[in-house]
Amino acid sequence: MAGNLYVIAAPSGAGKTTLVRLLLEHEPELRLSVSWTTRAPRPGEENGREYHFVTVDTFQAMISRQEFLEWAEVHGNYYGTSRKWIAECLAQGSDVLLEIDWQGAQQVRVFFPEAVGVFILPPSMQDLQQRLTGRGTDACEVIERRLAAAQAEMRHVGEFDYVIVNDRLEQALDDLCAVVRASRLSLPAQRARHAELFDRLV
Amino acid sequence: MAGNLYVIAAPSGAGKTTLVRLLLEHEPELRLSVSWTTRAPRPGEENGREYHFVTVDTFQAMISRQEFLEWAEVHGNYYGTSRKWIAECLAQGSDVLLEIDWQGAQQVRVFFPEAVGVFILPPSMQDLQQRLTGRGTDACEVIERRLAAAQAEMRHVGEFDYVIVNDRLEQALDDLCAVVRASRLSLPAQRARHAELFDRLV
Repeated sequence: MAGNLYVIAAPSGAGKTTLVRLLLEHEPELRLSVSWTTRAPRPGEENGREYHFVTVDTFQAMISRQEFLEWAEVHGNYYGTSRKWIAECLAQGSDVLLEIDWQGAQQVRVFFPEAVGVFILPPSMQDLQQRLTGRGTDACEVIERRLAAAQAEMRHVGEFDYVIVNDRLEQALDDLCAVVRASRLSLPAQRARHAELFDRLV
Repeated sequence: MAGNLYVIAAPSGAGKTTLVRLLLEHEPELRLSVSWTTRAPRPGEENGREYHFVTVDTFQAMISRQEFLEWAEVHGNYYGTSRKWIAECLAQGSDVLLEIDWQGAQQVRVFFPEAVGVFILPPSMQDLQQRLTGRGTDACEVIERRLAAAQAEMRHVGEFDYVIVNDRLEQALDDLCAVVRASRLSLPAQRARHAELFDRLV
């Protein structure tokens, strides 16, 4: 495996989307894995940016060729993450970033055991509660469902290699950049990158 | 183990000393492990900076209390690395840096298996050869001995977690800083640092 695969998970409200956007600005050669879907594009959505938009036939053909790492049907539409696309990127030496939940992350580890797992946490449960409460217009029940989902996600923090506590955004971004940079310096990554130098050492 | 232990090794000529000095300027709370010795201080040397200068009696008492990670007698003087001092720093939550050769690093791993090992390589063997040749005033034999020693050291690169190729100093320093920062974000380190938050997740 020449490229590194980064798997980023977080409960909603932890600031993952913002962090990932900033990371991609900082590391433009990092490729974000974009999901495939059969649902119609919404106004403003671009094929290959928000999703790869495909027909049901194409999607089902991809399923039968076992191209997906994971796929699901939601409200009559298919959604999936392409294992083939990720594997091709990595083989070409590209680093790939995957925004995913803990279940997806478990699947990724099966196929890509060297994936670097990063979990983003809010600084405290009170803070998360405040962020999920939003502008105060949502029903109690909706908020409680969000909190329960966030807590269920966070219970899987122990399955990840790195944990970033998103207290101050700039610090958290520097943390994320450090994890990406350090992973590229791991022994296997460097052995692959500097093969000629390593060959002369032994 | 609350603090992180970083073990940095390199062949001579790879620029380790400069890199470590710059890292310590960048990360002033990182504590460099200073060796203990029975040799007399030279002009300009300060107790606790270059070495901890102690009497032979004190040194031997430390040996008998098994305080050393490693010690050796060289030209009638004792030199040693204090395991006790490192363990105390780590227990207090300090991060400790150890400049050491591959043999010392192996010893460290026995006592501190979670130590983060970093190996510094020159960009190429030609480059190393040039750096070790120095100003051209040394005898061939001396240079060849240096090269052989450097090659023997480099053969152990595979025992380290991270490898930094010191081609451009600033890049290498950023690499080293990223490794230090990322290690502090590992799951066990974060679990220790944010114990209260983690306790509330499970």
